[in-house]
Formats: sequence, C-alpha cells, structure tokens
Amino acid sequence: MQDIWILRLGHRQSRDKRVTTHVALTARALGAKGILVSTRDSELEESVGDVVSRFGGDFEIRTGVSWRAFLSDFDGQIVHLTMYGLRIDDAVPRISGGRLCIVVGAEKVPSEIYQMADINLAVGNQPHSEVAALGILLDRVTHGEALRKDFGGRLRIIPTERGKRIESDPE
Amino acid sequence: MQDIWILRLGHRQSRDKRVTTHVALTARALGAKGILVSTRDSELEESVGDVVSRFGGDFEIRTGVSWRAFLSDFDGQIVHLTMYGLRIDDAVPRISGGRLCIVVGAEKVPSEIYQMADINLAVGNQPHSEVAALGILLDRVTHGEALRKDFGGRLRIIPTERGKRIESDPE
Repeated sequence: MQDIWILRLGHRQSRDKRVTTHVALTARALGAKGILVSTRDSELEESVGDVVSRFGGDFEIRTGVSWRAFLSDFDGQIVHLTMYGLRIDDAVPRISGGRLCIVVGAEKVPSEIYQMADINLAVGNQPHSEVAALGILLDRVTHGEALRKDFGGRLRIIPTERGKRIESDPE
Repeated sequence: MQDIWILRLGHRQSRDKRVTTHVALTARALGAKGILVSTRDSELEESVGDVVSRFGGDFEIRTGVSWRAFLSDFDGQIVHLTMYGLRIDDAVPRISGGRLCIVVGAEKVPSEIYQMADINLAVGNQPHSEVAALGILLDRVTHGEALRKDFGGRLRIIPTERGKRIESDPE
C-alpha cells in the first residue's frame, strides 16, 4: 500500500482534542503510516499510542512538528484538503501512487499551504468535516484496501451479524 | 438519489457538540435528506440550519426525537454503524436502494439497536471515528454522486487550483 502521512495543522489542545483524535484514528484505520501534529500535545500522543498498543499496527504519531520544515523536506506529493479546492473526482487521478502527505487543517490555514500543496483537493465544495473528508479521500486512494487489512493487534474484532465479538491475547 | 436519513444517538450537548455538528454536516454534504438527534439541542439545530440557509439544499435537522419510536415506524432499511459489524465490502451489497436510515451512535449504544438494525455494518473493524465511517459509507452508497451535486445556495464555492473562489447572491 502507498506510503501516506497526515499533517494536522492548527490543533488547539483543549478545543480540538476530540476532533484531532478522530483525525488520527481515521488515518490509522484507513492505512496511513502516521500523523504529524504541528502543536505539541502529549495527551494526544498517549491516547493514540494506547489504541496502537491494543489494536496493533505500527502507526506513528509525532506532535510539536514544524509544518514548514516538514513540508519543505517532504519527498513526495502534497495534497491539501480544503473545501475550496478541486473536485475529488478530478483531483484523485492526479495522485501519483508514490509518497503522499495529506494536509488537514483545523480553523484557519496559512495561505502558504495553498501554494506549497501540489494539489488543493475538495471532498465536496461544501462545509462539512475534515474527519469525513480525510476518511473518504483515504478510502478512494487505497481503493478500500486498508479496511480489509489485518492489524495483528492484541485485541481483534471479529466482524459479526449482531452483537460484539472480540478476541484477545493475554497481556 | 436514494432517500437517506441519519439517526444520531447518545449525543450529549456539551461533550459531543462539535462531533455531532461534524456528523450532521457530513450527512448533508454527502446527500442525506436529514438528521434526527435523540437529545434536544437547539444550538445544534441553529448552527446546522445556518449552514443550510447560506449554502443551500433542504437538509432537515430535528432534535429531541424518540429513537425507539422513529426506528419502529421507519419504512425502510436500518443500517447501524458499529466497529463490531460486518465488513463494509460484504454489507454494502445488501443495501437495497430504497429508503435508508443510518444509525450513528456516540459512546454507548443500547443493545436493542443491534437487534432493530437490518444490518450492523463496520467501516473497518478498528476504533476510529463515526464521522469518517458515515462519510465513507455515504460516499460508497451514493457512488460519489452527492459530492457532484449543486446545492444551489446563496453562497457557492467554485472549485479552484489554488486559493478561494466564492460566489454569492445578495441577501
């Protein structure tokens, strides 16, 4: 599967705690390698790390990352998710299949990002949710492959018609 | 397009404010007709109504709805989004194309829901985000059609390579 990184901008620890957690867990479940968060937030690192240790995989989280340095050094395509961008149907065919960084902003995104991005991409030109937009883009780019992946975790959920089936290894 | 309704369960006004707003706006942008929220929340109604009045469409929001009565009376298929459910690839072909209600829980979902649902469906059997799960399911069910829809609103965003292009009619 493609080497995909998420860059989360403008996260404010108290206000965006839950939404950024949703962004990070969506990134993991949909096959990204890791997430970089521009603000330092050790609680966020812990709660995402906790899911990784129980449910498996090698998803990485780093917070307090300089987005400008990261994007300048990134050797791959940069896609910025924005409701102002090109239609997803037109933009996805331009994604190359090599290393990919998806930029997900919170409230206000510096205008520099629109310039540094190779593609400004809109999952619908309507206001909605960066979490849903990220999920849909990753689902399209990975052709749903990530959702069939075995994470090999200590806890494993077995798909079932009704109710809950969980398998677990001893700690 | 298919007649799709979202039922949001277990919303707590202070804690889930932003996440439920994301759920509602995702539902609207991805082609649902409306959202029913089991808890009464007039602020949520206002903020979603505000987006509808500016960006168009006829998306409905109702809060303080009895989920049991709504589901019992619903004349269509009921799909419950849960990480414990059947794989999306196996479950989507079972969705009929008629009226559809998608149930999106917050923290804890009554076990009755697993029984009332025609399909318990998992967008990946991993913990992530109900917002992303809803977005991906709607994108798959509508074959991306909703993302190409013209909402005919007073404010219209014009897809563009870089920057922001907004057209607006006088108020």
